[in-house]
Amino acid sequence: MDTVTSLLDSIAGVGRDEQRGGYTRPVYSAAELDLRAWFVEQAGRRGLDVETDRNGIIWAWWGPPQAGALVTGSHLDSVPGGGAFDGPLGVAAALAAVDELRARGVEPRRSLAVTVFPEEEGSRFGVACLGSRLLTGAIDADKARNLRDADGNTFADVARQNGLDPAHLGADPEALARIGDFVELHVEQGRGLGEDGPAVAVGSSILGHGRWKLGIAGQGNHAGTTLMEDRRDPMVAAAQVILAVRQVAAAQPDARATVGRIQPVPGGTNVIASRVDLWLDVRHPDDAVTARLVETIHGKAQKIAAFEGCTVSLTEESYSGTVYFDPALQRQLENALPGAPVLATGAGHDAGVLAGYVPSGMLFIRNPTGISHSPEEFVEPADADAGSAALADALEALL
Amino acid sequence: MDTVTSLLDSIAGVGRDEQRGGYTRPVYSAAELDLRAWFVEQAGRRGLDVETDRNGIIWAWWGPPQAGALVTGSHLDSVPGGGAFDGPLGVAAALAAVDELRARGVEPRRSLAVTVFPEEEGSRFGVACLGSRLLTGAIDADKARNLRDADGNTFADVARQNGLDPAHLGADPEALARIGDFVELHVEQGRGLGEDGPAVAVGSSILGHGRWKLGIAGQGNHAGTTLMEDRRDPMVAAAQVILAVRQVAAAQPDARATVGRIQPVPGGTNVIASRVDLWLDVRHPDDAVTARLVETIHGKAQKIAAFEGCTVSLTEESYSGTVYFDPALQRQLENALPGAPVLATGAGHDAGVLAGYVPSGMLFIRNPTGISHSPEEFVEPADADAGSAALADALEALL
Repeated sequence: MDTVTSLLDSIAGVGRDEQRGGYTRPVYSAAELDLRAWFVEQAGRRGLDVETDRNGIIWAWWGPPQAGALVTGSHLDSVPGGGAFDGPLGVAAALAAVDELRARGVEPRRSLAVTVFPEEEGSRFGVACLGSRLLTGAIDADKARNLRDADGNTFADVARQNGLDPAHLGADPEALARIGDFVELHVEQGRGLGEDGPAVAVGSSILGHGRWKLGIAGQGNHAGTTLMEDRRDPMVAAAQVILAVRQVAAAQPDARATVGRIQPVPGGTNVIASRVDLWLDVRHPDDAVTARLVETIHGKAQKIAAFEGCTVSLTEESYSGTVYFDPALQRQLENALPGAPVLATGAGHDAGVLAGYVPSGMLFIRNPTGISHSPEEFVEPADADAGSAALADALEALL
Repeated sequence: MDTVTSLLDSIAGVGRDEQRGGYTRPVYSAAELDLRAWFVEQAGRRGLDVETDRNGIIWAWWGPPQAGALVTGSHLDSVPGGGAFDGPLGVAAALAAVDELRARGVEPRRSLAVTVFPEEEGSRFGVACLGSRLLTGAIDADKARNLRDADGNTFADVARQNGLDPAHLGADPEALARIGDFVELHVEQGRGLGEDGPAVAVGSSILGHGRWKLGIAGQGNHAGTTLMEDRRDPMVAAAQVILAVRQVAAAQPDARATVGRIQPVPGGTNVIASRVDLWLDVRHPDDAVTARLVETIHGKAQKIAAFEGCTVSLTEESYSGTVYFDPALQRQLENALPGAPVLATGAGHDAGVLAGYVPSGMLFIRNPTGISHSPEEFVEPADADAGSAALADALEALL
């Protein structure tokens, strides 16, 4: 019987990022495909029947595929230079929980599926939870098909190269109906679980969050021959926008706003950029407040850009309102895990997208430093094992 | 007989950049290799003997290779999303000038070579004028061998893949001694030549300039779960540094300072960066002032970083002091081109590196908008032709 730790150890060499540290496993990269193959092999060893649906979600079935099944799982893709746990912990814990349930001799009253969702991070095509958004129809299939990665490949092309029919991407009511309840286990991404208390929490809600692209256009020119007073430099405008983003978020209790990605065009050292694109990540429990924050940032960006002789455009790339997990399912999880605290999270998850359509819930595993989306993300092996045991307890109660 | 314009037209399709606009022709890319092959073919058509020296500089000889020859040429590589003229104009004008000299029946008293220098822009390996720096020994060969491009390839490896022996890179006194006088024709990169006056100017000096890399390290983390007050976000520090760069340069007459390139690590939308690298381009006629400006920026960056809980490191990537072209050669160029104004430039050139070792001079061709390092860089065809005629006049006087 594998432990979560031994399962994660067996993929510790896949997708390491020598430059950034940690792991870079974007969806349908060689690394993520290796992890998918690993999952299929692990499912096979357990006698689970594996199918990949038309949106690229992998389902591994204990019992016949059926409507109303109990479903658990997470994702295998990562942010650039991410940690070892965000995603794979939930998949490994699900596999270990199946082992545990069988060792306990549990006889399921309904089928159980372990799932792997593609592009949870949105690190390749810009839309987080793309797999669950496609499954549920939360994203328009045409919009998804036309998403492009940094190399200009469309999602349709990449899906085709990976054995999917781009024409069949999108809402899949039959597959969705198979989810009677969905439980996702995930590493906690703050410090909501103290050092000495329980290692596992039950999720209550996900902070509303969205991504916007701010494009600032100026006048590209030569860095040596263009006088300071003759410039319309979008980088200088972008710098002021980044500071405005921090200022606006810091002034609003419970708000978080981040610029973690910026791209000057052309991006040469001796070139005044002609354009700078930057990406905004904004989150707040109240969707109206999030909208107002983004509007405020946009207004400030317009003033800054105008002052610098630049122009600005704002595009929403994705938005998910604040999600409250299914109260009945949450209560069942709390009952199955007595003493487990209840936590909200600021991070988006496929369980959050699914929650709009089917009963969904989450379990969070202690993160001693609160660091995530970083090579330094860490989970104690004992906590990981406590996580799969807790997941097994929860699944046993729900099966 | 080809005109400059027809020669440039024949390479107009090579290395176009659909995303940025203009051209992206980094050294030893497919595009730059195509241009090198084009140059070799053009030289062959003219019966010029072509050799590539151990630093990858191409020499096309009219007459036997000999010490003290007259040499003219420029480069074929470009910045990302650069214009059609920066580099290729000087090479095309040199080829057209050879045609013109022959049409005039000029009998050279010494050999003439047309040269193509690699990595003038420094857009791939970070050091501008790498070819002329290697030839002259202005850069240490070991340092050059270990330069890396954005994909992590060393210059040594890329040189080897392109038929050079990395062990033989570096100072080449024999090749250098072949340059009796060097004349580089180049598109002007400011608006130093008025609309109605002459189309060609004689260069007097090159503004001192250098490149520094500023690395700002903070704490990578999750954009959704990390409270604003818990962050050590290097992007926020970088934004303040960019504004400090502009402020410091604007306060110093004749100074120019630019951040055109910035790279967050890991660079995900939903990730607080752990590190942001940005590149400084700083220029001033007085080398001591340039040094002081960089020191001031570094000091401000340290304070900013400390305040944000980050650290900062500064690395000089290249530096060239202000260069005055050879006065005797400049006078000869002025005499050959009566009425041509004399211009200083803020842009670096191989002629500026060579000027420290052999008599070197430059001719500048009118740039009606002053825009360069941009797809909008433009030269009127009539001005380009006036340029090659002027170059022919100058070469005839010097041959």
